[in-house]
Amino acid sequence: MRKSIATVSLSGMLPEKLEAAAAARFDGVEIFENDLLQFPGTPGEARRICADLGLRIEMFQPFRDFEGVAPDQLLRNLDRAERKFDVMEQLGTELLLVCANISADASSDLDLRAEQMALLAERAARRKLRIAFEALAWGGAVRTWRQVWDIVQRANRPNLGVALDSFHTLAIRDDWQGIKDIPGQRIFFMQLADAPWVNTDPLTHSRHYRSFPGQGEMDVTGFVGAVLDSGYNGPMSLEIFSDEVRAAPARSTALDAMRSLLWLEEQVRHLPSLKHPERTHGQLGRAVLLDPPPPPVLHGWAFVEFAVDGPTASRLREFLFLLGFCPIGRHRSKNVELLGQGDVRIVLNLEEDSFARGYFDQHGSSACAVALACDDAAAALARAEALGATRVEGQVGPNELTIPAVRAPDGSLVYFFDTHQGGSHGFEADFVLDAMPEGAAALDTCLGTGARIDHIAAVLPPGQLDSWVLFYRALLGLEPQPNTVLHDPYGIIRSRALEAPNRKVRYALNVSDRPGTVVGRTVGQFGGAGIHHIAIAVDDVVATVRQLRARGMPMLAIPANYYDDLGAKYGIEQATLAAWSELGVMLERSGEGEILHAYSTPFDNRFFFELIERRHGYQGYGAGNAPFRLAALAHWASRHGNPPPVNQHTTHDPLS
Amino acid sequence: MRKSIATVSLSGMLPEKLEAAAAARFDGVEIFENDLLQFPGTPGEARRICADLGLRIEMFQPFRDFEGVAPDQLLRNLDRAERKFDVMEQLGTELLLVCANISADASSDLDLRAEQMALLAERAARRKLRIAFEALAWGGAVRTWRQVWDIVQRANRPNLGVALDSFHTLAIRDDWQGIKDIPGQRIFFMQLADAPWVNTDPLTHSRHYRSFPGQGEMDVTGFVGAVLDSGYNGPMSLEIFSDEVRAAPARSTALDAMRSLLWLEEQVRHLPSLKHPERTHGQLGRAVLLDPPPPPVLHGWAFVEFAVDGPTASRLREFLFLLGFCPIGRHRSKNVELLGQGDVRIVLNLEEDSFARGYFDQHGSSACAVALACDDAAAALARAEALGATRVEGQVGPNELTIPAVRAPDGSLVYFFDTHQGGSHGFEADFVLDAMPEGAAALDTCLGTGARIDHIAAVLPPGQLDSWVLFYRALLGLEPQPNTVLHDPYGIIRSRALEAPNRKVRYALNVSDRPGTVVGRTVGQFGGAGIHHIAIAVDDVVATVRQLRARGMPMLAIPANYYDDLGAKYGIEQATLAAWSELGVMLERSGEGEILHAYSTPFDNRFFFELIERRHGYQGYGAGNAPFRLAALAHWASRHGNPPPVNQHTTHDPLS
Repeated sequence: MRKSIATVSLSGMLPEKLEAAAAARFDGVEIFENDLLQFPGTPGEARRICADLGLRIEMFQPFRDFEGVAPDQLLRNLDRAERKFDVMEQLGTELLLVCANISADASSDLDLRAEQMALLAERAARRKLRIAFEALAWGGAVRTWRQVWDIVQRANRPNLGVALDSFHTLAIRDDWQGIKDIPGQRIFFMQLADAPWVNTDPLTHSRHYRSFPGQGEMDVTGFVGAVLDSGYNGPMSLEIFSDEVRAAPARSTALDAMRSLLWLEEQVRHLPSLKHPERTHGQLGRAVLLDPPPPPVLHGWAFVEFAVDGPTASRLREFLFLLGFCPIGRHRSKNVELLGQGDVRIVLNLEEDSFARGYFDQHGSSACAVALACDDAAAALARAEALGATRVEGQVGPNELTIPAVRAPDGSLVYFFDTHQGGSHGFEADFVLDAMPEGAAALDTCLGTGARIDHIAAVLPPGQLDSWVLFYRALLGLEPQPNTVLHDPYGIIRSRALEAPNRKVRYALNVSDRPGTVVGRTVGQFGGAGIHHIAIAVDDVVATVRQLRARGMPMLAIPANYYDDLGAKYGIEQATLAAWSELGVMLERSGEGEILHAYSTPFDNRFFFELIERRHGYQGYGAGNAPFRLAALAHWASRHGNPPPVNQHTTHDPLS
Repeated sequence: MRKSIATVSLSGMLPEKLEAAAAARFDGVEIFENDLLQFPGTPGEARRICADLGLRIEMFQPFRDFEGVAPDQLLRNLDRAERKFDVMEQLGTELLLVCANISADASSDLDLRAEQMALLAERAARRKLRIAFEALAWGGAVRTWRQVWDIVQRANRPNLGVALDSFHTLAIRDDWQGIKDIPGQRIFFMQLADAPWVNTDPLTHSRHYRSFPGQGEMDVTGFVGAVLDSGYNGPMSLEIFSDEVRAAPARSTALDAMRSLLWLEEQVRHLPSLKHPERTHGQLGRAVLLDPPPPPVLHGWAFVEFAVDGPTASRLREFLFLLGFCPIGRHRSKNVELLGQGDVRIVLNLEEDSFARGYFDQHGSSACAVALACDDAAAALARAEALGATRVEGQVGPNELTIPAVRAPDGSLVYFFDTHQGGSHGFEADFVLDAMPEGAAALDTCLGTGARIDHIAAVLPPGQLDSWVLFYRALLGLEPQPNTVLHDPYGIIRSRALEAPNRKVRYALNVSDRPGTVVGRTVGQFGGAGIHHIAIAVDDVVATVRQLRARGMPMLAIPANYYDDLGAKYGIEQATLAAWSELGVMLERSGEGEILHAYSTPFDNRFFFELIERRHGYQGYGAGNAPFRLAALAHWASRHGNPPPVNQHTTHDPLS
């Protein structure tokens, strides 16, 4: 389908917006009037910029407060419309979005509204222009697509049709299935937006919280399916108002926007038609819907790769040894080391003049790549590229494996390792492996043979949560979980998890707007996203932590008061509490399930490991314990050289 | 009255919170349980810290999910309570806050709830502890103070009383006047919070948007009056949950918190009693309510002072000359210059080794002080100090005026100039004045003899809006106006105006969370708050701008498209539009009134001047034109060396 975006959905001045839309390969744009009014050039110049960029101007918008008014006002409104028609002629667009009049003064007489819309359509027809009429979710007498369609039918002018916006219908939980029965050629335009469910009024919801399809929680896919069932064959056009997106760079927003439409096309392709329930839209051949390979079946992480220089490698090696990791081997052609235990593999990349070193220089000691073990790496790569990711090719030595990779939004890499190449650990073929210790059947020094990565938590810079949610959802088919808020002693942290359907890959994404939180300090110090912790599932957390302690691994201390409360809350006996307290093992219960988990102290105030034991089907992340973990980390950081930044606000205005 | 604050209202770890509360001279604290659970010391150690700081532990809180449960659960809940009583004994506090059980399973039978609360009270009584029972605004069967009071009466235990929280009552617009009829000794505790009105559910409202009294929009004063009418003589205690406050430094939050209570005491003092409507609470001698001098009667700004070094002074002098300002004189003993026109006075402070130079070094070229002209400067100063402001004493030469000053939250100064000392310009006595040009009756080069400062707009760092609102409201008696959101091309700007009752002093405060906006760039570059623009009221904006243009003053250019829209919207004739367009004069209408205004280009990308002409009683700030002004400023800044910061997010993940 033709893809368009409203300029209001991108930050900056009009030329930046248009360049960003073109760079993301949009076919067209809606010109939002305020963007034009702020543009120092003429409408003709805006038209030329679009033409040069290969962008069609799909629509000019919005025109408000027109219909349902007294006769004298109608004349003034028609004059006003003529001025806008002038602008449209200069812009070279023939479609105007008119929003149903939401003024309290506007008449609720639909015949009057229809009559006046007919007049407007006639004026537009003289100029060969068309009107797309839209209902706003916070409208009074007119606020649904049915009412607008009713008015359009009463007005009965060929150049007057309806504009549909997924948000205006979904946000008020209005029925959208009936849209399939509108004749498709009477739908002049389809605007799309998603949003999280937020407890507020539709206007506030719309103005501040819209997001791109796939980033929110609404059924945009179903809505588009109904519109396609009508026979609509115009563009799909994004219209987002969001505090976050208004502040995000236009270029990256446009890339997210395009990814959301590509993902949406695929979702709709697999959706059964409302008119022909036995067939999907793909089978009906409706429009040209993207058909990428399906999301990869993921089996976990083959390895996590850390970018390090020599001194950092020494310290990190020591840190990992204390955690029970063993050296396994060295890369055949690169200065790269492999460590592991149980099913977990860690790669230390010491190559100079490499991607990893560049990442290290920019981000400090951190994970620069992960490799996902999957059934069909070639298909996973093809899907990622179809959904707008950039393929990255590394240097491959003779007889070495080619492991395809794409770039994540922060510049780190996501490898796809094909399990047909020797299982999840098949990549070890590129390494000269050390001899196993005598009698050792597997790497089971501490965490046990069953140890595997349960989830990875990442820290994102402010404003990038939705971007990453869409990246993982679209490329990998991970399902976003509800938004949550965690309490750090120095501010709130917004968090959202994504999970593979088989739960073998789970990410927890965290973002903090303020510099004092544990998360914010990581961003401030290292200028970007990164892996914050790696949670390893073990069979017996208590036994494991005991072993780690015996090896000298410092674990994160949890205050005794926490355990007193745990005892009061769950009636756990003193001896158990005392053991947990000594080890820093925390507990959370949810229904029948429970989680026991403990944390290592951090490496370079940057990342750490969690050990978790899920019991009785527990599927969460121990969020109830997050405030205590974050406080303990803040406490640890304050005593190890990373206190919260001093805000100059504190230096003035003492009362004393 | 005794003043207390809940530890949850302050950021950081428990010791930081307690130190901040003590530094702000609170008498006591409520210990929020999670703060204790995160504290690495014992409850006894927390008790000693409080004792050392002179803080009384007024209450331990909260205890939840207790009453209205099945018998077996009741036994478990009583056990849980005993564990918390242990903690209270160690803390040395005798009051526990119990929140009415909001669980969906909890019984709606108030007799059952009362019976179980009586059991809890009996257990507490054995330990000489008391229970304060509170309703939560999002409760189910129990969610109002009347229901809680009903249960307390049915339970009928002397150590069981009610806890009242202004938020829980005001947020659901419940009647609070009836509180006066509760016997005061049955009210065990009064918690206070304000909040802006936000369209959301009470729980979200409470968790994220609470603010200190005077910062929000609720009638906390009336609520406290009703509680005092009951005969309550316990502490007033603040309990705030706010995303902003969680991230703000505890020290400055505690100072704001104390200021809010001092201000509130004064408000209540002047409030008529509900029980004795002919008298105010002050006349009734209730508690010991603060009685500072009333807010000063303000006559405008005597002068605005800029901190400059030599080279900056040369450029700023030139900038001001182009704006029509004339040199008036030099300070008798300091390297300080005075410029003026009409009623406006600008001071350039070049003193080395001074407050101003220190401010300049920290903030760059910016206004470091303002002087407010008022009726009684000594009283204004006494009020400011009573409300927690710090008096600042400058160097005064022989026979020079002493102008009292206090420090604003960003370290800049607010002087109070007493108009009895020769009117608003009486401070000029400290200056050696230049001879007036021959025949000149007044300084009227350009802006006219009537030119005066209409309002001053300031830029605040993120998270400080409420702090400043309270500063101006409490010290100066300015009335806060509703919160507004402005659209900069690179993100949203939150804005709130405050106005003196006579409107001779008005401030517009602006804050942006993101670095790319015009406001955010100012903060990022200069590390703090500052005057963003000075709006000067003139009689005829069009004539004034013409004169400025003739002098060579570059005004901010507004795109022609804006004027086309203005014509379409208001039906203004072409010749007028053309004149305005050439001059950059903008128009906004509101009801009968209208504003014509224009902007200078900025000085050092830092501050600028606005010229405004208010017509027919217009009282706003032209907010509808703000997006165009902000876009024009962003456009100007991009071409003059201050583009938005490049976000690294843009450098990766290109689709192409």
